[in-house]
Amino acid sequence: MDLVTIADVRDAAETVAGRVVRTPLLPCPWHDRLWIKPESLQPVGSFKLRGATNAVARLAPADRSRGVVTHSSGNHGQALAFAAAAADVPCTVVIPDGAPEVKIEAVRRLGAEVLVVPPARRLAEAERIAARTGGTLVPPFDDRRIIAGQGTIGLEIVADLPEVAAVLVPVGGGGLASGVATAVKAIRPQTAVFGVEPELAADARASLAAGELVRWEPELTYRTSADGLRTTLSELTLAHLRARLDGILTVTEEEIAAALRRLVRQGRLVVEPSGAVATAAALFRSADLPGGPTVAVVSGGNVDPAVLGRALG
Amino acid sequence: MDLVTIADVRDAAETVAGRVVRTPLLPCPWHDRLWIKPESLQPVGSFKLRGATNAVARLAPADRSRGVVTHSSGNHGQALAFAAAAADVPCTVVIPDGAPEVKIEAVRRLGAEVLVVPPARRLAEAERIAARTGGTLVPPFDDRRIIAGQGTIGLEIVADLPEVAAVLVPVGGGGLASGVATAVKAIRPQTAVFGVEPELAADARASLAAGELVRWEPELTYRTSADGLRTTLSELTLAHLRARLDGILTVTEEEIAAALRRLVRQGRLVVEPSGAVATAAALFRSADLPGGPTVAVVSGGNVDPAVLGRALG
Repeated sequence: MDLVTIADVRDAAETVAGRVVRTPLLPCPWHDRLWIKPESLQPVGSFKLRGATNAVARLAPADRSRGVVTHSSGNHGQALAFAAAAADVPCTVVIPDGAPEVKIEAVRRLGAEVLVVPPARRLAEAERIAARTGGTLVPPFDDRRIIAGQGTIGLEIVADLPEVAAVLVPVGGGGLASGVATAVKAIRPQTAVFGVEPELAADARASLAAGELVRWEPELTYRTSADGLRTTLSELTLAHLRARLDGILTVTEEEIAAALRRLVRQGRLVVEPSGAVATAAALFRSADLPGGPTVAVVSGGNVDPAVLGRALG
Repeated sequence: MDLVTIADVRDAAETVAGRVVRTPLLPCPWHDRLWIKPESLQPVGSFKLRGATNAVARLAPADRSRGVVTHSSGNHGQALAFAAAAADVPCTVVIPDGAPEVKIEAVRRLGAEVLVVPPARRLAEAERIAARTGGTLVPPFDDRRIIAGQGTIGLEIVADLPEVAAVLVPVGGGGLASGVATAVKAIRPQTAVFGVEPELAADARASLAAGELVRWEPELTYRTSADGLRTTLSELTLAHLRARLDGILTVTEEEIAAALRRLVRQGRLVVEPSGAVATAAALFRSADLPGGPTVAVVSGGNVDPAVLGRALG
């Protein structure tokens, strides 16, 4: 399988420059060799804007007017809606009924058309729309343009902290980890890149151990508070992680909550549980890390105010 | 009176590079011509780190071992303690008794010596220590090195958004506004620089109108939730603001609370009330602004978790 290359990531970096926030590395107030990469500060609140922006920018001219389609109701849906609006490309987001009204409204406010369908029909409906309109399906992670876009985070980390010893990245569908590992390992092979998962949704660890895709049923993955990390890898992201990741660390729900609380109270960042897992690994899995300067990617900040309130209590 | 020059600010920028966070401009999710400069993301949670870092770096070699002294228990005290520790310079912070234990602990954790004295004796005690030890007093704003350090924010704003039409800056003692106005007006005179104060602590507006320092009693200024902005200007900062500021805007407590809520919920930043006033002016005083690309400086994020919790409720 053809993997994304460092050249793809560099091309993506040129494409997204000025269209996404060049996030800084923030020195961690409670740890003198840890830095936070706050992707929660992207306009839509997550790193997903990078991949979506790259995918939209790479549409063939003839495809632009036919628009883009996706079936993610979460951060990718918002990111694609934002990126499409910024590029003046029509966007349709298929959302399962039962999704919180606030998410639907957020996508609509970004200018996308929203289609609400029964959960089981999401993918089929998105494919039907794409077929009917000639629009381009932009999946949340199973896509080389998306992986290359997320990889720009890795380029920035190495540019800002050339001596980085370890990079910690949340793993859901694996697009972020695939992209970051691609960039970091190409430039600095001696830097360790670890994926981080909730113990309660450790399907990527299981997949890497088995050497093939292992799916965990929603009954299992829905136990974790890290709602962005319940997804299974794809063949494409599994291939990247097998080739380029140094390993997977897992963290407990208590550790995720503790990291989230620290990021809010001491890091002054609003983060979602999925966004806190890499920081949790830096806090509680240091024995498994090489030591030396470490970067934890805070992937997103779209948290329910009630969850945030509990973190403050 | 000799004012700080753009050359002083450029020197400060060289000095603080790599020692403070180069904060990005964040596009405001709810306003397409507003950018946030999130100084809340500095390691000590406020812009004060810039001035303190510059002041410590400019100590004469012979003065370094004798250390620095200040009498601010707030953000400047923490910033000076942090900057001194990073430069391996001893630091003493005089704190009035009755100050929250959490603030005292924060300064101690940063490695500074803390001296708790009755509030009325703060300044005298700091001066006594400086006289006894030969240490250097570093005041929170009435100091050219501090003003030049805060001015580096202005340089970064113009570098990142060369077409900026208006910059909004909170005004307490006036060090931040003096520095930012110095930098911005020197490079781009056509950009408007406005100070922003709470209506309930509008002593800088009164001072500018009178052409001389007007002091508001603590009974007045302590009414505002923006505890970082209760201070009066000094002759030095007043001179800078008279020469370089386009004006002062004031905002109500309700407007500050609304801006804080937006910054937390939509901007995903943890901010303190003082840090929200410039954003409040962008939201509620647009009629007084020139229009065009606007930057609001979010000066700090050291907020009581209970206040933050209420903003989420």
